[in-house]
Amino acid sequence: MSLLVAKFGGASVGDIESIKNAASKVAQEVRRGNKVVVVVAASAGKTDKLIDYCKSVSPRPNPREYDSIISTGEQLSAGLVTLALEQRGLNARSWMGWQIPILTDSDYNKAHILDIKPEKLLSRVEEGEIAVVTGFQGIAKDGSITTLGRGGADTSAVALAAALKADRCDIYTNANGVYTANPTLVSKARRLKSISYEEMLEFASMGTKGIKPRSIEIALRYGMSLQLLSAFGNDVGSDMPGTLITDKDHTMENKPVKGLAYSRDITRITLFNVKDQPGIAAKIFNGLARASVNVGMIIQPASCSGKLTDITFTVSKDELARAIEIMEEEKDKIGFVSLQSDKNVAKVSLIGSGMRTRSGVAFTMFQALAEKDINIQVIETSEINITVLIAEEYLELALRILHTTFGLDQEEAG
Amino acid sequence: MSLLVAKFGGASVGDIESIKNAASKVAQEVRRGNKVVVVVAASAGKTDKLIDYCKSVSPRPNPREYDSIISTGEQLSAGLVTLALEQRGLNARSWMGWQIPILTDSDYNKAHILDIKPEKLLSRVEEGEIAVVTGFQGIAKDGSITTLGRGGADTSAVALAAALKADRCDIYTNANGVYTANPTLVSKARRLKSISYEEMLEFASMGTKGIKPRSIEIALRYGMSLQLLSAFGNDVGSDMPGTLITDKDHTMENKPVKGLAYSRDITRITLFNVKDQPGIAAKIFNGLARASVNVGMIIQPASCSGKLTDITFTVSKDELARAIEIMEEEKDKIGFVSLQSDKNVAKVSLIGSGMRTRSGVAFTMFQALAEKDINIQVIETSEINITVLIAEEYLELALRILHTTFGLDQEEAG
Repeated sequence: MSLLVAKFGGASVGDIESIKNAASKVAQEVRRGNKVVVVVAASAGKTDKLIDYCKSVSPRPNPREYDSIISTGEQLSAGLVTLALEQRGLNARSWMGWQIPILTDSDYNKAHILDIKPEKLLSRVEEGEIAVVTGFQGIAKDGSITTLGRGGADTSAVALAAALKADRCDIYTNANGVYTANPTLVSKARRLKSISYEEMLEFASMGTKGIKPRSIEIALRYGMSLQLLSAFGNDVGSDMPGTLITDKDHTMENKPVKGLAYSRDITRITLFNVKDQPGIAAKIFNGLARASVNVGMIIQPASCSGKLTDITFTVSKDELARAIEIMEEEKDKIGFVSLQSDKNVAKVSLIGSGMRTRSGVAFTMFQALAEKDINIQVIETSEINITVLIAEEYLELALRILHTTFGLDQEEAG
Repeated sequence: MSLLVAKFGGASVGDIESIKNAASKVAQEVRRGNKVVVVVAASAGKTDKLIDYCKSVSPRPNPREYDSIISTGEQLSAGLVTLALEQRGLNARSWMGWQIPILTDSDYNKAHILDIKPEKLLSRVEEGEIAVVTGFQGIAKDGSITTLGRGGADTSAVALAAALKADRCDIYTNANGVYTANPTLVSKARRLKSISYEEMLEFASMGTKGIKPRSIEIALRYGMSLQLLSAFGNDVGSDMPGTLITDKDHTMENKPVKGLAYSRDITRITLFNVKDQPGIAAKIFNGLARASVNVGMIIQPASCSGKLTDITFTVSKDELARAIEIMEEEKDKIGFVSLQSDKNVAKVSLIGSGMRTRSGVAFTMFQALAEKDINIQVIETSEINITVLIAEEYLELALRILHTTFGLDQEEAG
């Protein structure tokens, strides 16, 4: 018998049918002899609707009231999932963040969990009751409701799993795990049976759906095994239905690359003929930072002339206009001659802990892309990640080539 | 400076415009130097929608979860009204039932308030903060959310006003007080400036809109002055804008009748030729009581023959079919010969504490109706109420005649 935390996201409780379906997933786990603590998000679109209400009354709503209002979304989900479980003959009870309690700081809209007191909840779960907990929310010291920010229901689930010393935290989404590459672009992609925390962090940072980096970090800190699996598929009964995120990744894996990630939400800006002097990069990026424009990749080649160089960096698509505006404003201060931007770029990443101990992965990647005449515009590497910026039109081709090159096209990957 | 409780019903917080309007009413009171505690209901239709959600998951939803779900309606209202007050530059804060706390028993869906601990809220109100409280809900000893049943937001408001020792409890509705008769039927009807608790109880029991009997009973117990006034009109600034319900009714009123009430939601059943023997009435009404059919007026004339009599009673329109069914089932046991029912009836009541000390009110009423050939089918009287059952087609005529007869057609009634 295991103690499981099962988290259902917005789409998984998006309507009455989905709610009943979520209840059936929980019921399957109960039949397998497990104790289950369910964590629910607000139904898809509900939080946005509540935010709209707030905004229509006040353009800058008081954050305390805002949190109190939007927290009703999870309260509704938790109640309805509890009713659906009872309708299946199971013994269940909803728990609001304040009822457990999940104690947070008073940083409304993006509060941090300070402590969870799980004793009351745990004693009922041990008596055989299913707990259905509102994700995304907690209670501050003064008794106000707080919310944890977007993706906060995952955070709630993982933090609760850690506090309960659960055996596993299952994250149900409308994906069904992590793939070696996006299956809609790479037909030979395969679902990974397991993945390490740090690899998953890389995937999540690249925007791979399923779970947010913050939750993975908490899981890593507490050594809590996470499982990403489908809320809608029928594979809960199988042995390992989704992708397990764990530090106990004992798959006999000899591939250096675990999978590929990519992003199209990226644009490139190049400043030409910048004076190559100390502090120039700081000048450029300070202005962007002040305007809260996030800079992604950066490349500043050593200049041959010793006097002038070109600096390239990337920003997300919706921040491009603002970034260009700031550069033009500070053109004289920075001292560049011209600026070029390109929206038609994409980045592709190889991700895998195995790269640490294998040399030549980058070389193999560059060679494979070169063979197809795919030009690499920027390169960025970390210990377990090599990312390149290429023209967007080559994205699918690059993914397929790399997938084959690194031996991921197999019946049983991962 | 007074401490006021201001309660806004579902229609008064039904949409964003109404919410802003409610905030403007509160702002007016604050400008007049008053401290205000606002109590809000869920927006009109919201609770029904939430109940629909519950029912679509479970035909007989668990009452604890049901309360937790439907309580989100007031939580939303309270947050939005608070935002609207802040948007007007006022200092406000929402309070859920559990945050105050308003302690109730665990009788979910129809909980009773056991105690209110107003100290925390009061200290903030005394510092100049407007408190916006969720009506209709409280918290049980075990930390579960409870609701007080339909009309519960009025109960919350009056109970909170009593706990806070407020100077007055204002109930804002889409009516603007209590009238000598329904103005849509009696054009010469006038708004009453004040009315006693017991008179208001009679009006409310007859279905007069604005406030439920339960809240009036609480106000009576604590001597809390209530004021019924319009959420939408512009008369807050005037001296006495609505109808004051109080035991300090010092209007120089020499009329025995304060006003007229009526109901069309009534049907008459007559059982003919019932054996006139002891216990016969009990036989009839036990069956109805077992089926939870509420019997209204009853008349059992002393039979002339000493053997057979006719018994007449009234039930509401939606219980008529069930009542007839029960009578037919028990026909032999009761021993009546035939049954006649009539849907086309209405009841008309004279209400007024002054009847206690004035004789002849009933006679004047019967005479006035007789002059117009309006037949009285059943009569029921209490100390401050005379009610008659008549054919529905004469309802408007009866109301107009009685309104004139009892001197209510005046510029300044009440």
